[in-house]
Amino acid sequence: MRTIDRRSFLTGAAAGAALLTLPRFAADAAGKPDLEPIYAEIARRKDEATARLQDWIRKPAIVAEHRGVEEGCAYMKKLCREAGFQKVTRIATKGSPAVLARLEVGARRSLGLYFMYDVKQVVESEWSSPPFAANLVDLKGVGKVVMGRGAVNQKGPEACFLAALHAIRGAGRKLPVNLVLVAEGEEEEGSPHLPDVVHHPEVQAALRTCQAVMLPSADQNLGGTPSVTLGGKGLLQVELSVSGEKWGRGPSREIHSGMRPAVDSPAWHLVQALHTLVTEDGNDPAIDGIDAMVRPLSRREKDLIADAVSQLDEASMKRDLAVKRWARDVPFRDVMERISGRPTVNIQGLVAGYPGPGGKTIVPHRAAAKLDIRLVPNMKMTSALAALRAHLDKRGYAGVEITNVAGYDPTTTSYDAPPVQAALSVYREAGLRPVVRPRGGGSWPGCLFTEKPLGLPAVIFGLGHGQGAHAKNEYFLIDSERPKVRGIVGAVRSYVDFLFEFAAR
Amino acid sequence: MRTIDRRSFLTGAAAGAALLTLPRFAADAAGKPDLEPIYAEIARRKDEATARLQDWIRKPAIVAEHRGVEEGCAYMKKLCREAGFQKVTRIATKGSPAVLARLEVGARRSLGLYFMYDVKQVVESEWSSPPFAANLVDLKGVGKVVMGRGAVNQKGPEACFLAALHAIRGAGRKLPVNLVLVAEGEEEEGSPHLPDVVHHPEVQAALRTCQAVMLPSADQNLGGTPSVTLGGKGLLQVELSVSGEKWGRGPSREIHSGMRPAVDSPAWHLVQALHTLVTEDGNDPAIDGIDAMVRPLSRREKDLIADAVSQLDEASMKRDLAVKRWARDVPFRDVMERISGRPTVNIQGLVAGYPGPGGKTIVPHRAAAKLDIRLVPNMKMTSALAALRAHLDKRGYAGVEITNVAGYDPTTTSYDAPPVQAALSVYREAGLRPVVRPRGGGSWPGCLFTEKPLGLPAVIFGLGHGQGAHAKNEYFLIDSERPKVRGIVGAVRSYVDFLFEFAAR
Repeated sequence: MRTIDRRSFLTGAAAGAALLTLPRFAADAAGKPDLEPIYAEIARRKDEATARLQDWIRKPAIVAEHRGVEEGCAYMKKLCREAGFQKVTRIATKGSPAVLARLEVGARRSLGLYFMYDVKQVVESEWSSPPFAANLVDLKGVGKVVMGRGAVNQKGPEACFLAALHAIRGAGRKLPVNLVLVAEGEEEEGSPHLPDVVHHPEVQAALRTCQAVMLPSADQNLGGTPSVTLGGKGLLQVELSVSGEKWGRGPSREIHSGMRPAVDSPAWHLVQALHTLVTEDGNDPAIDGIDAMVRPLSRREKDLIADAVSQLDEASMKRDLAVKRWARDVPFRDVMERISGRPTVNIQGLVAGYPGPGGKTIVPHRAAAKLDIRLVPNMKMTSALAALRAHLDKRGYAGVEITNVAGYDPTTTSYDAPPVQAALSVYREAGLRPVVRPRGGGSWPGCLFTEKPLGLPAVIFGLGHGQGAHAKNEYFLIDSERPKVRGIVGAVRSYVDFLFEFAAR
Repeated sequence: MRTIDRRSFLTGAAAGAALLTLPRFAADAAGKPDLEPIYAEIARRKDEATARLQDWIRKPAIVAEHRGVEEGCAYMKKLCREAGFQKVTRIATKGSPAVLARLEVGARRSLGLYFMYDVKQVVESEWSSPPFAANLVDLKGVGKVVMGRGAVNQKGPEACFLAALHAIRGAGRKLPVNLVLVAEGEEEEGSPHLPDVVHHPEVQAALRTCQAVMLPSADQNLGGTPSVTLGGKGLLQVELSVSGEKWGRGPSREIHSGMRPAVDSPAWHLVQALHTLVTEDGNDPAIDGIDAMVRPLSRREKDLIADAVSQLDEASMKRDLAVKRWARDVPFRDVMERISGRPTVNIQGLVAGYPGPGGKTIVPHRAAAKLDIRLVPNMKMTSALAALRAHLDKRGYAGVEITNVAGYDPTTTSYDAPPVQAALSVYREAGLRPVVRPRGGGSWPGCLFTEKPLGLPAVIFGLGHGQGAHAKNEYFLIDSERPKVRGIVGAVRSYVDFLFEFAAR
């Protein structure tokens, strides 16, 4: 057993001391541990777990707005200590600080956990309940939810994981695995300093003791089907901008548009450059060399997707995405294959000139587009960035600047990896048939764990439900109206099940 | 002599009564009137004229922000009454109200005046002196200026014209022409209701008594050279937008960009549509059929431009426009021919998705571009709009909406028209060599006066100097440091000279 810092161990409250004096847990005939006392403890602590999540949502850390970041880190540390982590350390970076937390129980296996404590910005006026009030709201056909920024992305699932630790301890049971938790505070910015965090000697040493990494998530849709994705896309986030000054053409300040015949337009230059980055329908990357980097989906990946498609409800997915038709009007299976297997060049935002009501007859001296480029195997963030630069230069757009670069490579874990099999087992034991996909549409910096030097399998896991990540009215389900969809109690339980299942493999 | 409304006549103050009992003015041997007493009166009233302009700037009417419009109209009426106009009427429209003011002295000739009382929006933080403080500021190499929104566009020149009326009256002299002043309050919005104003029976009847229309302007550059433009471009102002909802593709609310492979992007659809509207370099319209509408410059127009080019300082014009090089790297003469003779499609603003710091991984559900399309003879606003719609539809962009349409046709006046010759004469008498161009780059709704049914010649006229129309730090020169550039006294005098010159033709 590793040395435990006594001070941070004690801050885990009196109950934490019980960890060292726990009885061995009971097991059934098949050798399965009896988890009923823990489940009862989860139910008993439901209000406590809900209140913990609400309180966390009320303390947002939003990096883009330089809001509450240091406080968010301190709060994350407090949450870890209260959940029983013995050694909780602030890891400084050039950006937001990260947290390393260890819970060492002398178990055979160790599980890494990847948390984030930051949340996305909000447009407050769009919300039906204030985004940082974390109100309990009744959603028709769904149930009682906590509504607020971060509710599902990612505080809800993370709070449920921590609640699982509280319940295990509260039931007087010993944790079946050691835990190494890494929480970053810049996930919503594309995790610019997570490489520094993961490569930090103390963090790296801790992660090297692990056999897998898990990321808590609320992975049930409204039909109750849980998803397992075996990987995540890489992300290259950039801002493309043209300024008259730096381009050397066009005005270096806003001028009257009557003089447009005399001067170049940074805004048009940007539009013409953007035009070349995608196909005519706007849907596929047209950046030189990008397609050659893409590894097509394997037979096995396509089979997984075909199986997933047979389980998913196309109509409800369209509803969730607020679309009437799919891009390209292709069949659903094609849509799902593209989500797993194809890169995209997305416009997050366009900014130039006058944005207000009515018009303003000016030639803007600056124009910018915020883009995210999602990467699939075998694309690398650095080579995608180089391809973008070369593509623009070749076409006469050397004056288009690329700034605010952030991102990471794609990540992939094998279907047969123990944490994946543990997750599938928990879902099946819960009477649910999981949908397994080789890769989701979203991104997370799992490559830092799954690629060299760590090379760990990583899984995104969790029962429960929520919606509205990055959008308005984000929520996490507390009391479910739907039989197959788990509320907070079921979500917490899924983490207990996972820990014991993973420990047994 | 027409009936004069007694009440509004009396509000012109006691001095106004002198109008009816004025002695005939003195004239020199050549029959030219002796204007020295008026010039002396202008000098004496310099501070009064400056204060009048400052006070006006401090009361902005900004239509796009629904700010001070009704007050701006009332203030315009007050300014007219104080300057001696006898009948001053508010003309209601579906938008901002206009003002009709008449000053009838029984003269042989009547001059129409086109004023505007609204001003452009500001980005207050950009200004070195608050835009509505109208502070007196010393500008190195220029002189003492009034800085504020509307200082040069158009309150400064308009206030100088009104000061000319004050000076003529103050010197006990009779006005040599009758005046019909039309002031609108939506010029900065593209004058959407000016047609209704001009076609209003009372306004139309008044304008039918006129032989010309004049628009006060500060037309000297920093070298002192005054410009005369024989016309203005037409303007078609539109907003092009794509919304997932109305397009029927793409999300109807903002969604997470991880799902981009599944959904169409309104922002990309807009970019791809915009791309087709201009040539690859972004500089020439590529809207189907637009080129065929353009009447090329005539030999005489090209000669005027060649003469203008020989007088203008290319380097200082580049400086004024904040550019290092001209669009297309063409010679100066070509630049000037394009300003007079070529239509443009300009991006005023781009708005989509997340505009703030950092990134936000969303697919925006709406994107918009604010455009102004400048029109030359023989283009018509309505046919340009129809061409734009047809161009988009033909290329699969029927989902791109065109809204917020405003504008008017181009306007042209003959070089030989009396008001033009009067203007040129005043400039030459002042020892300046005017630059005459067939058309400037800017727009004004002169077509309402110059086209049927009125068919009046129209001239933009005035000595004086200012800069920063539609931009930051807009100013109008009060005390000039440059020998050839007129300050406020010289500007007021130029209007006195113009009135007597026009009356004599």
